[in-house]
Amino acid sequence: MTLTIADLARALDARFWGWLHCRDGASEPADAGPNQIALATGPDYLPKLKPGGIALLAEGTDPEAYGQIAAVLVSRPRLAMAGLTRSFDPAKGPAAGIHPAAIIDPSAEIGEGAAIGPFVVIGEGVRIGRNARIHSHVSIGDFARIGDDALIHAGARIHHRVTIGARFILHSNAVIGGDGFSFVTPEKSGVEEIRDNLGERAEIREQRWVRIHSLGGVEIGDDVEIGTNACIDRGTIRATRIGRGTKLDNLVQVGHNCEIGEDCLLAGQAGVAGSTRVGNRVVLGGKVGVSDNIFIGDDVIAGGGTDIYTNVPAGRVILGSPAVKMQTHIEAQKNIRRLPRLYTQVAQLQETVKNLLDKG
Amino acid sequence: MTLTIADLARALDARFWGWLHCRDGASEPADAGPNQIALATGPDYLPKLKPGGIALLAEGTDPEAYGQIAAVLVSRPRLAMAGLTRSFDPAKGPAAGIHPAAIIDPSAEIGEGAAIGPFVVIGEGVRIGRNARIHSHVSIGDFARIGDDALIHAGARIHHRVTIGARFILHSNAVIGGDGFSFVTPEKSGVEEIRDNLGERAEIREQRWVRIHSLGGVEIGDDVEIGTNACIDRGTIRATRIGRGTKLDNLVQVGHNCEIGEDCLLAGQAGVAGSTRVGNRVVLGGKVGVSDNIFIGDDVIAGGGTDIYTNVPAGRVILGSPAVKMQTHIEAQKNIRRLPRLYTQVAQLQETVKNLLDKG
Amino acid sequence: MTLTIADLARALDARFWGWLHCRDGASEPADAGPNQIALATGPDYLPKLKPGGIALLAEGTDPEAYGQIAAVLVSRPRLAMAGLTRSFDPAKGPAAGIHPAAIIDPSAEIGEGAAIGPFVVIGEGVRIGRNARIHSHVSIGDFARIGDDALIHAGARIHHRVTIGARFILHSNAVIGGDGFSFVTPEKSGVEEIRDNLGERAEIREQRWVRIHSLGGVEIGDDVEIGTNACIDRGTIRATRIGRGTKLDNLVQVGHNCEIGEDCLLAGQAGVAGSTRVGNRVVLGGKVGVSDNIFIGDDVIAGGGTDIYTNVPAGRVILGSPAVKMQTHIEAQKNIRRLPRLYTQVAQLQETVKNLLDKG
Repeated sequence: MTLTIADLARALDARFWGWLHCRDGASEPADAGPNQIALATGPDYLPKLKPGGIALLAEGTDPEAYGQIAAVLVSRPRLAMAGLTRSFDPAKGPAAGIHPAAIIDPSAEIGEGAAIGPFVVIGEGVRIGRNARIHSHVSIGDFARIGDDALIHAGARIHHRVTIGARFILHSNAVIGGDGFSFVTPEKSGVEEIRDNLGERAEIREQRWVRIHSLGGVEIGDDVEIGTNACIDRGTIRATRIGRGTKLDNLVQVGHNCEIGEDCLLAGQAGVAGSTRVGNRVVLGGKVGVSDNIFIGDDVIAGGGTDIYTNVPAGRVILGSPAVKMQTHIEAQKNIRRLPRLYTQVAQLQETVKNLLDKG
Repeated sequence: MTLTIADLARALDARFWGWLHCRDGASEPADAGPNQIALATGPDYLPKLKPGGIALLAEGTDPEAYGQIAAVLVSRPRLAMAGLTRSFDPAKGPAAGIHPAAIIDPSAEIGEGAAIGPFVVIGEGVRIGRNARIHSHVSIGDFARIGDDALIHAGARIHHRVTIGARFILHSNAVIGGDGFSFVTPEKSGVEEIRDNLGERAEIREQRWVRIHSLGGVEIGDDVEIGTNACIDRGTIRATRIGRGTKLDNLVQVGHNCEIGEDCLLAGQAGVAGSTRVGNRVVLGGKVGVSDNIFIGDDVIAGGGTDIYTNVPAGRVILGSPAVKMQTHIEAQKNIRRLPRLYTQVAQLQETVKNLLDKG
Repeated sequence: MTLTIADLARALDARFWGWLHCRDGASEPADAGPNQIALATGPDYLPKLKPGGIALLAEGTDPEAYGQIAAVLVSRPRLAMAGLTRSFDPAKGPAAGIHPAAIIDPSAEIGEGAAIGPFVVIGEGVRIGRNARIHSHVSIGDFARIGDDALIHAGARIHHRVTIGARFILHSNAVIGGDGFSFVTPEKSGVEEIRDNLGERAEIREQRWVRIHSLGGVEIGDDVEIGTNACIDRGTIRATRIGRGTKLDNLVQVGHNCEIGEDCLLAGQAGVAGSTRVGNRVVLGGKVGVSDNIFIGDDVIAGGGTDIYTNVPAGRVILGSPAVKMQTHIEAQKNIRRLPRLYTQVAQLQETVKNLLDKG
């Protein structure tokens, strides 16, 4: 894709300096070829710029000091990456139109401009908005509704009666609307027992699991993106909900009945168990686990690997297993590391006091 | 789906009170419309019941006290949810019969009443029992055997020579019978070395991994359910086994040669490494990890996020990383939280004793 | 499959003893039938050998002492498992040739000897080497390149412009080359704020996530194997890289821009966040998590469940959350277990010293 730096500067709402050159792509400074813009998005990249090149630089950096012959100057380089990568993304989907090897129920309504790949299956009463790009092997269950500009990658599954807003991005082999993991035993189960007894099992007995069916759907807002092999289960009676603008990474699990707020980020392999509510702008790092039936307030940030067993108030920054305030966790680790010295000090004190007593 | 409360009461083996009304669905009390039964399965839901409605209530609750005009009264509301959601589940699968776009080897035997969706592939010598519902894009490898009443969701994979009992439920994109993760180095590897040396690496050297092929199958009992994107690997020589009645949630991993007992629950993202045996009625919470080649006794319950590195005796309730008894874990956390005060106390003691010594 | 023990001994570069018998498979000693070789790969298996059988034994073991009538004697039994299981693996793939229900772009080049199953989709400009075995429902995106002898299981996804070496094995429903999880906020986000403030959030504000598109590819060396439902994201600008000989287990996640070295093993559910570099011969146990933008040196071994937040020097053996040297972790756990006694000792000291003071 060929762009001039003037095009790029316009796309990024930035200014440019130097000669106008056509570019056919972007690269990291160390790898930049003669026809590529070098992305020097942080100070570490500046020494790697090749003289005679063209660079994306932070405002305030002098292109000539690094031997550049042209530059786009941006106020927030990481944000500029968003615009720049969007500009260069060929965004190639399946060919326009509906592939003859797709099977679409005659009652389904597909908006204008759709590109639907081979071996796609779309069920009864489905409604999909305009400009959908649906790659091969996708299945969409009966009466699902998806907004405009959806991008759905190969092998993803959207089950029956799921509703999704505009500009949805769903990655390969992710599954929206599988059944919840919800079972009950005819008698009180061991799990219920230990909740009542603080962890002691009073008696051991047969327990067979009876299935609770999932009648609720999944409701997803606008501008949501969900990663590869992620799983969002449907609700039992009410819907599982994912708010507008929230992004879920690969292999994330959201259990039945959960409500995830708006503008959240859930990183890879994070999991939220059933019926938990997560506020707005919450960030869960990779592998974070959240117990069922709890509440995470707005703006909470949990570091990678945190296990959250109880409610978390709004705005808290947490880490560890069990989750505590990040500062508390760091201090607890320090205290644990200092224990060998403490054991020595106490042993010395015991000896000293024993001597004092003996003397006394 | 329309049911009278008499129908429901009969399905739930419960009694009903008040007028008979037709219902077309169920809802949570706060969301219940005029034609829905409100599920007040716990005391928290009672205040949300709308006067003039119809409710599912625990025996001993007075429907009139909450303004209800009819009710189904059940002895164990959570158990009633199982019957009620089953009653209302439309359980709609693919259309009856075999879709013309399915590819089924002529040697495969499919029982009566099957519904097999488009783009399904079924291999040589496969045997599937009666009333199978197999959604689109599923593949079933050569000589696999599946019992009656199977429900297999879109994109799931069952590999060659896997054998499965009756009433199996397999969710989308789950994979049964992938190869085990089993490699060996020509010389002793670093991993073997540290097992012998308690964690010290004596020397660093090249190690290339040679593949051990998986010749064993997977054997799954009756009434097993396996979640979205879960993975059950085949055994190396003997089969990997999942016992009757066991339920596995989304993204669960069961390694090669594992034996999981009967009536177990493994919650989302739990993982059991190769050759480990898990007893009956074991419950592993979300994200629990279990090392290879160990043994988990019957009726063990592990809280979410627990890492199990060593054998666990029957009936134990465990938590933490490394796993310890739940009570021990809770006390250890308390002891860690109290450390700052302990450090202060010891410093004061040192000061006091020093003064005593100086005085002496 | 029928082999004589002479065939087996030749395949394993081992010697054999006793009569030559034809065998049609291998088994564990306790399960071995009359026509199977019993694999006594460790001393625990020896007592289970059935008299009159044929066994695989470690050199130095006397077959007659266990009543065997023939044996293959190997110097490293676990290594012999590799050769033996390879010898018995029927390695059955899809039927030779291209299935008529596969859709292959006319511009794609498929090497000689390919076996491509039904419902496979191969895009524009793809190049695949000789003897590829590609099972049903696989999709391979435009301009992807795959070396000779690839084995790709059902439902796996290889996205556009991914390049892969020879002898690649990819398991079912794994996804190579999904987009990275990379977002930026127009203003500084809460996550950036707490990096600067050591975990305190100064103010709470709206944050909407703007997408950074993934323009980089994925580059995978020779002899790599990737497990079921694993996810390898493409890079932002440069490629994500997986080195020669590295093996990834089921449900493993490798984020955008990561570089994983050669001959590594990443066990089930391990995850490496974006832009992290992992050296050669690194072993990550099950569920290990690695933060973004860090460096793991060569020959590092991390036990299962370890959370790695910071750089790790070459050759280190680590465990725990946060990761520390394995010995340090074991001692820290011991110190935590001893805390109740320490609290008692300090309380006694306080009492004794108080008495001394009172007396004084």
